[in-house]
Amino acid sequence: MLRIFLHGKGLIIMLIVAERINSSRKSIAAAIEAKDRDFIHNEAVVQTKAGADYIDVNAGSFVGEEIERLKWLIEIVQGATDLPLCIDSPDSEVIRSVLPLLDRSPLINSISMEPLRLEGILPLAVERGAAVVGLCQSEEVMAETIEEKVRLASELVKAALAAGLPLDQLYIDPLVYPVSSNPLSGPAVLEAIHQIMEHHPGVHTICGLTNISYGLPKRKLINRTFLVAAIARGLDAVIMDPTDPELFGALMAGLAVVARDEYCMNYISAYREGRLN
Amino acid sequence: MLRIFLHGKGLIIMLIVAERINSSRKSIAAAIEAKDRDFIHNEAVVQTKAGADYIDVNAGSFVGEEIERLKWLIEIVQGATDLPLCIDSPDSEVIRSVLPLLDRSPLINSISMEPLRLEGILPLAVERGAAVVGLCQSEEVMAETIEEKVRLASELVKAALAAGLPLDQLYIDPLVYPVSSNPLSGPAVLEAIHQIMEHHPGVHTICGLTNISYGLPKRKLINRTFLVAAIARGLDAVIMDPTDPELFGALMAGLAVVARDEYCMNYISAYREGRLN
Repeated sequence: MLRIFLHGKGLIIMLIVAERINSSRKSIAAAIEAKDRDFIHNEAVVQTKAGADYIDVNAGSFVGEEIERLKWLIEIVQGATDLPLCIDSPDSEVIRSVLPLLDRSPLINSISMEPLRLEGILPLAVERGAAVVGLCQSEEVMAETIEEKVRLASELVKAALAAGLPLDQLYIDPLVYPVSSNPLSGPAVLEAIHQIMEHHPGVHTICGLTNISYGLPKRKLINRTFLVAAIARGLDAVIMDPTDPELFGALMAGLAVVARDEYCMNYISAYREGRLN
Repeated sequence: MLRIFLHGKGLIIMLIVAERINSSRKSIAAAIEAKDRDFIHNEAVVQTKAGADYIDVNAGSFVGEEIERLKWLIEIVQGATDLPLCIDSPDSEVIRSVLPLLDRSPLINSISMEPLRLEGILPLAVERGAAVVGLCQSEEVMAETIEEKVRLASELVKAALAAGLPLDQLYIDPLVYPVSSNPLSGPAVLEAIHQIMEHHPGVHTICGLTNISYGLPKRKLINRTFLVAAIARGLDAVIMDPTDPELFGALMAGLAVVARDEYCMNYISAYREGRLN
């Protein structure tokens, strides 16, 4: 298992936010609907075993019931794993309602430069000692170009520091768009990752992998390839399914070839556990 | 097939030097020994179909008979494919002897800053209109650090231009060492690729993929992961086996995510041909 990441201790190889417990997935929505505790419990357990650092919980598909459904998920997941949770909602009221339930400092996913999310969520995070995902978007723009991504990242950094959030608690998501509709969206993210981390030493970058391949065949091949390219530019956190064998193999090999796995020990351990594909 | 590369026309996506016909491989050495023309012919055909730009021919294991054996290979391969050849020998006498046999301008693999190879081979290449692989090594050093690789690349560029070789006919190999013995060898190559191409616009970079994984399990996973990382830093030529399905899939996906495959057309074609794995 990938266990070198030390929360808040500075040695960061790669932080894995495990994405499976998300109500946008049919099986999860069905389990929530049916109040199938065992299903959710098992999803938390398998992702923990697979090397997650945070377990994401999302009930956003249940409009009007998001708070109640999310509380139900949180109670089950906290009983299934010792890992902290990633609370996945754009709504400050949802965040405010569930924070008191958490017995470990969470990652809050997410804020942006939109005033409602920035001013509604950031103070809650600081008060709770939580880490925060910050999206490169504002009321005016969802960043597509390198320049927009880097500019909004700087605004997020400034806002975070002003609110009292330590820089190493901020995970900037440069926003990933499909290469099938805009070929430059891949290089824009990769270059933005590099520039953001160079301009703001200590800040993290994070992204999801599924958007990049929208509209293309063999999407998982594109997703894991993009992960490797992003690792080569410095990405140090990722929202992914750690139980996907090929994706996990690409992650481990990617860290090995860029010297983020001392003497390839994590890679070799993963091999011995039969996890390299 | 990957057919966007245009020799000498400027639009370079990725040049593939197909590596299989190399006497260091047991099956090839045996075929040469047994004068098995059909075996060599087939190796040329399958690599051509798989998307090669050059077919590498190497008879270096046959000490004292390299010229004769290489001539035999060249005659068969030229009869099997319309592609140009990559003549793979460090010996200027070998190069001089086989050049008259070639009916297409080859890639010569390789020169270095060692005087015997530089002064012995470079003038032959210029006279023949050949392209050249230049290794980042001299009599004193085989470049390991970023600084050494970049310095030797600059010396190669200077020597090539002085000899009359156009910059776009020079493919600089930064030298790849195993990450298992020196973890920094991966990042050193990746950063050197970027710096070399930025310092010398028009020059190419090339490398083989097998050294990087020496001493590790699941070597092919490391090799194809390293290829993606190198593509993300600008590598535009590679010595590889284009018939390896997973490696070819990583190549196609890598080019797609860094916008070196317009609207992912090569990627989608490869998918339709059942070649994405």
